[in-house]
Formats: sequence, C-alpha cells, structure tokens
Amino acid sequence: MNSSHSIKELISKLTLEEKASLCSGLDFWHTQPIERLDIPSVMMTDGPHGLRKQDAEGDHLGLNDSVPATCFPTAAGMAASWNRELMHRVGTALGQESQAEEVAVILGPGVNIKRSPLCGRNFEYFSEDPYLSSELAAGHIQGVQSQGVGTSLKHFAANNQETRRMSVDTIVDERTLREIYLASFEGAVKQSQPWSVMCSYNKINGVYAGESQELLTRILREEWGFEGFVVSDWGAVNERVAALQAGMELEMPTSAGIGDSKIVAAIQQGTLEESVLDTAVERLLNFVFKAAAQKREASFDSRQHHQLAREVARESMVLLKNEDHLLPLRKEGKIAVIGEFAVKPRYQGSGSSHINPTHLDQALDEIRILAGDQAEITYAAGYDLDSDEVKEELVQEAVRIASEADVVILFTGLPDRYESEGYDREHLDLPDNHQHLIAALSDVQDNLVVVLSNGSPVTMPWLNQVKSVLEGYLGGQAGGGAAADLLFGEVSPSGKLPETFPVKLSDNPSFLNFPGEGDRVEYREGLFVGYRYYDQKQIEPLFPFGYGLSYTTFEYSDLTVNTSSCTDEDTVKVEVTVTNTGSVAGQEIVQLYVHDVESTVIRPQQELKGFAKVNLQPGESRKVTFELGKRAFAYYNVNIGDWHVETGMFAIRIGASSRDIRLESTIEVKSTVSLPVTFHRNTTIGDVAANPATADMAKQFAERSGLNEMMGDSQDLLLAMIKYMPLRAMIGFGQGKYTEEMLSRDIAELNRLHAEYNG
Amino acid sequence: MNSSHSIKELISKLTLEEKASLCSGLDFWHTQPIERLDIPSVMMTDGPHGLRKQDAEGDHLGLNDSVPATCFPTAAGMAASWNRELMHRVGTALGQESQAEEVAVILGPGVNIKRSPLCGRNFEYFSEDPYLSSELAAGHIQGVQSQGVGTSLKHFAANNQETRRMSVDTIVDERTLREIYLASFEGAVKQSQPWSVMCSYNKINGVYAGESQELLTRILREEWGFEGFVVSDWGAVNERVAALQAGMELEMPTSAGIGDSKIVAAIQQGTLEESVLDTAVERLLNFVFKAAAQKREASFDSRQHHQLAREVARESMVLLKNEDHLLPLRKEGKIAVIGEFAVKPRYQGSGSSHINPTHLDQALDEIRILAGDQAEITYAAGYDLDSDEVKEELVQEAVRIASEADVVILFTGLPDRYESEGYDREHLDLPDNHQHLIAALSDVQDNLVVVLSNGSPVTMPWLNQVKSVLEGYLGGQAGGGAAADLLFGEVSPSGKLPETFPVKLSDNPSFLNFPGEGDRVEYREGLFVGYRYYDQKQIEPLFPFGYGLSYTTFEYSDLTVNTSSCTDEDTVKVEVTVTNTGSVAGQEIVQLYVHDVESTVIRPQQELKGFAKVNLQPGESRKVTFELGKRAFAYYNVNIGDWHVETGMFAIRIGASSRDIRLESTIEVKSTVSLPVTFHRNTTIGDVAANPATADMAKQFAERSGLNEMMGDSQDLLLAMIKYMPLRAMIGFGQGKYTEEMLSRDIAELNRLHAEYNG
Repeated sequence: MNSSHSIKELISKLTLEEKASLCSGLDFWHTQPIERLDIPSVMMTDGPHGLRKQDAEGDHLGLNDSVPATCFPTAAGMAASWNRELMHRVGTALGQESQAEEVAVILGPGVNIKRSPLCGRNFEYFSEDPYLSSELAAGHIQGVQSQGVGTSLKHFAANNQETRRMSVDTIVDERTLREIYLASFEGAVKQSQPWSVMCSYNKINGVYAGESQELLTRILREEWGFEGFVVSDWGAVNERVAALQAGMELEMPTSAGIGDSKIVAAIQQGTLEESVLDTAVERLLNFVFKAAAQKREASFDSRQHHQLAREVARESMVLLKNEDHLLPLRKEGKIAVIGEFAVKPRYQGSGSSHINPTHLDQALDEIRILAGDQAEITYAAGYDLDSDEVKEELVQEAVRIASEADVVILFTGLPDRYESEGYDREHLDLPDNHQHLIAALSDVQDNLVVVLSNGSPVTMPWLNQVKSVLEGYLGGQAGGGAAADLLFGEVSPSGKLPETFPVKLSDNPSFLNFPGEGDRVEYREGLFVGYRYYDQKQIEPLFPFGYGLSYTTFEYSDLTVNTSSCTDEDTVKVEVTVTNTGSVAGQEIVQLYVHDVESTVIRPQQELKGFAKVNLQPGESRKVTFELGKRAFAYYNVNIGDWHVETGMFAIRIGASSRDIRLESTIEVKSTVSLPVTFHRNTTIGDVAANPATADMAKQFAERSGLNEMMGDSQDLLLAMIKYMPLRAMIGFGQGKYTEEMLSRDIAELNRLHAEYNG
Repeated sequence: MNSSHSIKELISKLTLEEKASLCSGLDFWHTQPIERLDIPSVMMTDGPHGLRKQDAEGDHLGLNDSVPATCFPTAAGMAASWNRELMHRVGTALGQESQAEEVAVILGPGVNIKRSPLCGRNFEYFSEDPYLSSELAAGHIQGVQSQGVGTSLKHFAANNQETRRMSVDTIVDERTLREIYLASFEGAVKQSQPWSVMCSYNKINGVYAGESQELLTRILREEWGFEGFVVSDWGAVNERVAALQAGMELEMPTSAGIGDSKIVAAIQQGTLEESVLDTAVERLLNFVFKAAAQKREASFDSRQHHQLAREVARESMVLLKNEDHLLPLRKEGKIAVIGEFAVKPRYQGSGSSHINPTHLDQALDEIRILAGDQAEITYAAGYDLDSDEVKEELVQEAVRIASEADVVILFTGLPDRYESEGYDREHLDLPDNHQHLIAALSDVQDNLVVVLSNGSPVTMPWLNQVKSVLEGYLGGQAGGGAAADLLFGEVSPSGKLPETFPVKLSDNPSFLNFPGEGDRVEYREGLFVGYRYYDQKQIEPLFPFGYGLSYTTFEYSDLTVNTSSCTDEDTVKVEVTVTNTGSVAGQEIVQLYVHDVESTVIRPQQELKGFAKVNLQPGESRKVTFELGKRAFAYYNVNIGDWHVETGMFAIRIGASSRDIRLESTIEVKSTVSLPVTFHRNTTIGDVAANPATADMAKQFAERSGLNEMMGDSQDLLLAMIKYMPLRAMIGFGQGKYTEEMLSRDIAELNRLHAEYNG
C-alpha cells in the first residue's frame, strides 16, 4: 500500500470522522490506527542524538527512563566536527537503533539558529550559521532515512529561545528570516527530504508557526519542494482548523478527540474544505504505509555504536588553547585528574533529548587505561556538582594533589541544571565553585589543562591562568574516552567552533533584545547573527567562529578560481591545496567565506559558503574543491521575493577560521536579472543620475529647475543637495520655473527611457 | 491687530485665493503680504547660532555672504556648557540682532538627536540625550522670544542624517520615537512655546513628516499644546494639500503660486474643508501681526556680543585629558603654536547655518596677548587646510619649532569640507596630515597640548602620544580667545561632553543601520542611542557622555531624597552638596541619572533626568536641588499611549559624568495606574500565577489538566514548562481531561477575578 492510487482509494473509504482522527496522535508517541482498513499505528520518539523510546505505556511526555540507546554527542558538539560524512554515519546508526526498537520516526535534527548563547536548548542545535547547520542536518537526515526510518526536522521556525516559547511572537524581518533562520531548514529540506518537519511553538510576526500557510505550505512545500508531513511540536496546536488549513497535518500528542471534532465541525459547517483534510490524510497515510513497508527485523551492536560515539566525540571537541604545547600529555609522571565531571560526566542536556545510554565512559577510567603503568593518576572531586557553593575541603584536597602533580587535568563546565529544554540560561559564567577551583589550582600548578563540558559558550575570565583548554561540549556516552584520546594524542583534535565564543554576554548581537518583552521578541540585530555581527562591529571574540587548534599545522596554497568574471547562472569552481606541515596526522577544516566587496544593500562582511574536512598524514597535501552557485553570492531581495546577486566584485576567502583567512581571490559576478525600477515624484535626482538609462536626462535638471542659479557660488553644496533632492523638489526650489506638468512629463519620459534601455 | 476676534474678521474679508496665498512664502525669506488689507510681510532667516540674513534680493537659498552677525559657538559646543542660563543669554543676543535687522523669526534651534556621529549636521544639534537637548533649546527659545522675535524649532522629526534626507523613510518604533526623538522637541515646546516648528524633509514610518497629522496636529498641538505655526523645511512640501490637512501652515520658500492653486482647487473640488485653510490662516496671521506688533527700533553692541560669544565659547570647550597638570600653561618660556587652525580658525559648520561674523578671533593672536612678554611664542602651520596630504616641509618646520619649545599647542580638527549640511561624514578620523603631524610632534615634544576644532566626535588613536586635549568644538567667532583663556587658566574649563566619544565608529549603536538602504533607514538600535547603548552593551567609550575635566576638583556629599516611597503623582526632591576642593574657582556640572532597578520592559541602564551647573570658589560648598516628577521614572507605554511608571525601586544616581557616579539613593515609586490585562487562551500559566488577582487559581491548573501526573518525577522541568505554557495547551497535554468548555469558563473567571481585584 504505497501507490498514490491506492492511498486515494483508501481515503475514499474513510468516514469524515476517521479522516479527522488520523490528524492527531493515538497517544503521546503513536499515530492513530484504523483497524477496519488495516491502517497501522507507527511510533515516533524523541531524538535527535540518540533514541528516547519510553518503555511503558503510561510514560506520557515522560522525561523518565527510556530504553537504553547509544547517546551520541549533542548537536552542538557534532557540529564542531564540520564532518558531513560523520553525521551520515551517526544518522545511519540512529536509524538502525530505531529499526531495532520499531520506531518509525526519530524526532530531529534541530536546526534552529543559535541567536543567543543563552538559549537553553542550544546544545540541541548546530550553529549560528545557517549553511553549516543545514549541511550537517542533511547528513544526519540522509543517514537516518537510509535505514527506512524517518526524521522530523525541527523546530520550524524562528524558535530561538525557551523563555515563553509557547506564546512568544518572534518579530523578524523577511530578509533575515530568509537568509538566516529559514536558510538553516531550506538546505536540509532540499538536500535530504526529511519525512517530516516539526513546526515550532512560537508565533512569527504575529502568526503561530503552526498556523502559517506562508511557512508550512507556500515556502516549505511550494518553494522548497517538501514532500513529507508537518507535525506539531508536542502541544503546539493553537486552533486545530487553522493549523490544518495552513498545512500542519498531524497534531501531537493526541488531542483526545478534541482537535478531530473541530475539524469535523468545520467541514460540516463549510468553513473548511474537505479537500484540505483529504490532502492531509493522503500525506499522513503515505508516511504511515512507507514506514510500515520499510519496517524490518533489526538489531544493532551497542559496542560498535559506542565505538562510533567515541569517534564522533573526538571530532566534536575543540582545542581552544595549548600554550607551550602542553598537550598531548606524555604517558608518564604524576597526573592529577580533578573535577567531579571526571567520574560523573555531563554528556547530554536535559529535556526531550535526554537519553538512557547503553554504556557510559568515565574520563578518569579512560585516562587511567590510556596512561598505562608509567603514569601515576590521582583524583579529587574539587567541587560538588549539586551545588554552586565552594566547599573548602574539596578545594584543599584538589590543591594538594595538584601541587604534587606534574600536570593537572581539570574537568569543569556546566552542571545539568544550567542547560535544559524549557528555560534559558541567565549568564554565561561557569559556576562559582568551578571558577574558584580554577583559580586555586592555577596558584599551585602551571601545567593546568581544562576540559569543558557544556552545550553552549561560557565566559573564561580565567583563560590566562591555564595553559590548555579543550572544549568538550556535551560528548555523549563515550565523551570520557574521546577526551582521553585527545589529551594523550591518540588522535589530534580536529573540531572547530560552530559558533562564536564571546568575551562577555553583552557582546552578543541579541543582547539588547533577548528574551524580549512579554510575549514579543524583536530580532533587531537582523542579519547580524553570530560572526556576521562580531565581524561587522569589529568586536574581538574570545574565540571566533570556525576556530580550533590541532597537534599539527596546515599550510594553504594554490588558490585557483576557474573564472575572473561570470554570471549568477554559472557555477564557480574554487580549488585550494592544504598541506599537513607538522609531524603528526590530523584533520583540517577548510572554510570558504564570500565577501561582497561593494553593495547597495546592507550585507555582512562575509558569509560561510563552503567547507571541507581533510585528513592528512604529516607532509601530505590534498587539493580541496568547492563549487559556488548563485546562492553563494546572493542576498534575499524582498521586493522581488527571490534571491538576487548584485553585479559586482566578490572576494572568495579561504580560511582556517572566520578570523584566520589564509588566501583570497576576487571575481566579478554579473546579475542576469534586472531589478524593477519605477521613477516617481520622490525619486532623487541622484538616482536618476546613477541609472545608465537616465543619466543624461539628470544633467538637465539643475539648469531647467533654476537650482543652478539659486545656489550661486556654492557649487559643492549644490551637487550634494541635488543628489539627494527628489524630482518634485524642483517645483518648490524652482520658484515657478518648473511645474507639476513638467514633472509629470519628465517622470513619464524617465520610465520610458528605463524600459527602452532594459529591452 | 492681534485679538482673535479681529483676526477672524480679517479672514472673513479674504478671498479664497488670498487665504491660500498666505500659506506659502513671498520669496525665499518673506511671508506673503496682502496690501489691500494691511497684512504685512515679515522676514525669517537662517540661524540658529547667529543671524544669516541675506543682504541682496536675489540671494535665494544663498549660501553667499550675509549681513555681519555675531557667530556664537554652534549647538554642539553650546550644549557642552550644560548651561541653561547661558543659552538664554545667547538667545537674547540673537533676538536683539534679529530686531536690529528687522527679522521676525530666526530659524532654529535644532534639536535632532545625534543618532550617529557621522551625521553631517550634528554640529547644529545639541546632544544624543533628549533631556539635555530640550532643556538647552528651551533656554535658547526663551531668550530669543524675550526680544519679540520668533524661533522655529527644527527639524521635526526623526531627521538624523543628511544622506537622502529629502526622501529617506525613518523606520522607528513608537516607543523609541517618543522617548528619544520626540522627547527632544517635547520638552522645548512645553517649556518655551516657540513661535513656530519646522517640519523635516524625511518620512517617518512611511509618511512625510510634513504630511503627518499624527505628528503635526495630534502630538504637537493637541498633546503638547503648541500654539504657533508649522513651517516646512525649505523645499519639504511633497503634496501641498496633504501637508495643509496634516497641520503644516506655511510652505517655504514660495511655491510661486503652485501650492496655493492646489489648495484652492482642493477646496473647490470639495476634497479639502475650507475651515482647515481658515485655521491655518488664523495661525499665520496671529504670527504675522504678533511679529509686526513686537517689531521695534533696535541696535546691538557687536563688541559686547563678541564678549558674550567668548564667554559662551569658554563654556563650550571640554578638557578631555590633562596629564601631569600640563594645563593651565604658565605665561613664560617658549610656546610653539602649531596648526593652520590657529590663524584660520574653524569656528562654524557649512550650510544654512553659516554666519558672516562681525569679528573673528585668531587663537595665535589671543595666545600672544594673554601670554604677555615673559613668553616667547613661535608659530608653524604644520599642515595645509585645503588638502589631506602630508606636506613634508610644513611638518619639518613644525617639528623644528616644537623641538625648541617648552610646550606645544597644536590646533587640529576637521576642515570645513568634512562637516556640512547636505552630506554625512564617512569616518571619524582626523585628516591624514593632521594625524601625521601629531605623531611627528610627539616624537620631539612631550609637552603636547591638542586643541580640537570639530563639530562631532573624532577618533583619537594618538591620544596617548599627547598630554592634554581640549575639545574646542566649533567655537564661534571668539573661539580663539576662549581657547587662549582656558589654556592659560584665565578660567577653568567647565564644559562636559553632551555626547559619547566612541573609540571607533563601529562601536556606535547606529553603525549597522546608518545611513540605511536606499530610501529606508531602520532605527534598529531603538532606545539604545548614545550612552544608553554604551552602558547597556558595556562598551568602554573613548570619553563618556557627561565627561569633562577642570583645573579644580569637586566633592559630592550629603545626598538626600525627600522620600523613600512615593507615587507617580508625587514630586521627588533630591538634594546634594558639591564642594570645590581644589585651589582655583570652577564650575561643576552635576548630573542626575535615574536607573530602574527592575523592569518588565526593556529599559536603558540609566537616563539623564536632571543637571545643574554650579560656580564655586575654592573651598566653597553649594547645595544643588533637583525635582523629579513622573516623567523621570516613566517609559512610554505604547499599549495605553501614555507615559507609565512601573511600580518598583528606582536608583537616583548623582554623577560627575554618566560613568562617574558619586552618590546613589534608592526609592520606591508606585504606579497609580493599573495597566489593562485581558486573559485569553494564550495567556501563560506563569502570567496567571504572577498576577495577584489570579495566583490562587493558577495553582489548580497543573492538577486539573493532568500535567502533574504526566510529568512524573520531572517536577523541576514541570514548573519551567507550566510557567511558559498557554492556558490552551492544557487541552493538548491533558489528553481529554481538560476541554475547550473548561477553558472558556476559566478564562471568564480569570477576567472576573482581575476586574474584581482592581476595583
């Protein structure tokens, strides 16, 4: 049962009530079955970095225990890998586990943009950059769906905070929405066709995301070609009929018949076309039967998946500082491991993504294993995870072993309660007791390595008190082993930051408008999110977007671009050679940014338009290739409702981070589209002069209107004034020389000239 | 002829065409007379820091020579005086000169807010702060009008850039418009009732300022009680009939009959009520006859006015740096004066405010006079004002005399072409040749004093190469003498910055959105203009708002507030004692800022709500008193369309600058107004719980909806989730326990409880 024909036939057999009943869940996690017609029920579960399948019937929203599943690093960490192929492998593993657990859809990935580092759910999202976010999500989706299991790309859209998340109205201009917030979804939808998209709780510019026909139908389906179904975030339905009309097929969890009755009533009252319901049911049945058809007996090797989780975690960590090449550590001498996180890892966030892991590495154990017999490992907790309070006896014990050691590895970061779905953080600082401990340890030990566990940036006022910092993000169940691997140089760190780490919270672009006033948050920073803001405002970040160290070094050379001038319909091919110039193997993330040299519209300094991760042995070189299409140069033009490239020069920058550009080349890109222009009484004379079609005519205006005469000797000011003068002002300043009739004729002539010039 | 009765009678004798003809000028500067009814023509001229009366008939817009008049410092400098009384004296002098020249209205002052330091016309405006701006403008207006001469408060409103000034659409939210941009006009109108207000060229939120009934009638007249007439900025009329309808009585310059005919036609066609024209004519005739009645034989003593200009200039300059107490200079030894500005002063800006001064001080002369015989004064140009190019021979000569001197006074700043009406600046830097000269001089001379001439902030990457910096602004015709007075300590500097000097341009709040895209500029920084932004974003300015040094020192003590708790209808009286603790006389500008300790709406950290300038002999103490009314604590609430104080704690801060708060006291202010609240299906449970009227009911919701049960052990998350959950979500999550009917009943009950509670 999966042909369009037979689905339509089936729909014709359903009663109105049955059709409506399919549009909300059976319970918290299952779709509604209809047994008389053999329509099965399939299960969805939370994700996205592991399966959260509730094992009891009555578990409801259930943040209670779920069946064991592999817990991969959360999206914040996986994004630091910048590794599409790795994301695909993680997705594949998730798909296998879903099949094994008879789960049809694993909810995720989440591609909301990290507008503020305070967003409580940032650990579940990839990046502040829509391109990086959508590329990684596409890999994840393709991996999961390769196993016959669906995904639900979430939370669509502009859901970038937890504060008042179910009622807040996101006020965002169309261009920003397109270029930043929607773009993160767009790339993933177009590349990977997720089985479903989950709409978010919030309003956007006054309309609930779940009731926005513009969003769910016109953009998502008609423009991007989405073929799956839209499901509400759990509890996101405001008015069921409006939501169905807009394109939200499935209400979750079950509305216990309440939503269904509203649909039935609306159709009976003639306020809703039955065809809307039929279309929704068709999409849902397509999904249900596809899921059923692809269901298979499956199992998975949890040890293999744990090994994959360790591999992923290694790439999810970012080496931020490494003074005196303190890392990698030698497997000898006295190593003090400090911090309760070393034995009680913080490896995931709280809320719907919380996994019951199949196994859980402790960093301390893994360090002991890797360090071997030549090293002496000591341990002290240093702080109590359940409190932010300084406990002097814990500090003293830690200081004691630190002072006796050759090197200290301090595990610190944000306790569970700091980061969760459901609420936002209030500041970016580590807990007081962690900060106090860093200071105390640095007093007695120069060789201090900090390993951080956190899902979103923290401030580091203590940065110059420590030699090395490894940002571990939330590393999943094998994070402890991965950290040990990196600390001892089993592999070289290869992660780079998928987000800017600011010096202080107030540096963040959303700071003045986060989380908004009452039920209204205005995205006044517009396009200037993340590095786009720090670059433009010339604010030095603590660590910039795209930044990360390695145990080896890389050189960039031989940047070539296949053209110096092309149109916006061409594909530009960019090649660059990367060489491992150090003494150990390593992976480098090569980043391509495009800078619009001159623009009549406001544009960020540069935007990420390509990246590649290359694995290089010492001395090895590889050529990296990028292809750039129209979108790499375009901005979203709200007047034409389309992406547009403004003719001009563009710099193609190749960098090791957004602030470490190694090579640059400039090309001209010419638009094949001419933007509509209409001259009117308030068109400025400067604009007439700047238009090649009408420039000649502009020269006559100063004379004809009498302005020349009026300004006398002040010709400089005349030019400045005329430039900004609307055509109609010639009447006022002309003192009778120039009339309304002349203006009307001139405007007509200008429009004629422009039309003629443009063909 | 000035009673309302006789004016009305006169109007009844005018033909329709005659009435319309009164609504535009006779020519560039005069109103239209009607001789048969003895309606005179009166003259307006440009201002505002001096009279710019064109002496020939055919001078038109004329930036040509005007009759000699005293050139006072421009508003940017006068604002640095923070001296209401001095502004009144300047206004009085301007009024006298206007009477002497038979001028009925001197156009100005300009109270547009300095949104960006790049605005080409900033030198004509007072401040980035609306309170300071309006207080000083009120003094100016009262002074002029005390002489029977009118003012025209300009440019109304939100005209904060020269780029595309005649066509640009200022997109600004209502609250920002009220609290920042309109507030600067509001205080001046209410305190000083200017004879006229000049509407600006630009649009505001899609409507030309000159066609905005909201602005020109509802707010200006009905709300603020303005009784004068509105005149267009010269050439600002777009559609004459729409403008008249909105409340713009007078079109300037003459429309040569074109605007008049449109008015006549509209009335004849019935699209404009004749009563609108009659009202406009009544206001215009009131003005013309008042001006005529107050016209008198007058003359003025140009030497006295020059002396006043010198006094004003002394208070208009701000001592920014004074390492090792290098200033005041001793009148002995070798003093090298360098910089062409010392002999060709930059003392005013370009455009309509350009004055032909009665006399012009050269700083070099004045320094020679004051220094007397014990000092040897040398001079070198150092740079060429007509060019930004470094001229080595000029530099060498300057370096030579600098190296031979005991101290160097370098006059530097922005040449004329850098700052003008008609275009904006592109950067904040001094010309290359000036910067080069500073570096060259600092190589050979430690005792380097920089005197700046500029109308708006400049960057100072050279700041630590010099010992002293005197910000001279544009000091008017006696600026040279004033600078000499301050350099030698004839008086102590007493100016303080009326604007923030940023370290770099990109620090400015408008940076991402200045001057906008095409004909659209969005004020996305909202309320965060000037220090409001630097404070909130924790950006260290080069020099903060309100900052300025003196040759003496002041201590603040004994802050008392007459109440610890009051309502928004009370007046709060604040007293503080200031003591001159140094060894010379000096004036101190005491500043009062209000900080809202906690607010549910977005508010700046602090806002200026009072200031006083006190003159103190060494050892002398004075008590300074401030009175704070509702507006000192209020924000503009767009929902109720009124100023509103949110009940809570407010800190009253007394400072020597915005970043040098000396004393603070906290009081509670209680609102006497309860804001309207309506509960609806998307009101959050948290909001129900936070409302004292409904808090009890909120406690039942978790139980009644089944949420309690659903969340199981996750009670922390439950609380977070419930807080942000809209009432209607209980239906979805309740899984049948909670229905639409229950919701409707509950909403009704909540609204009933709230109404009952609020009486």
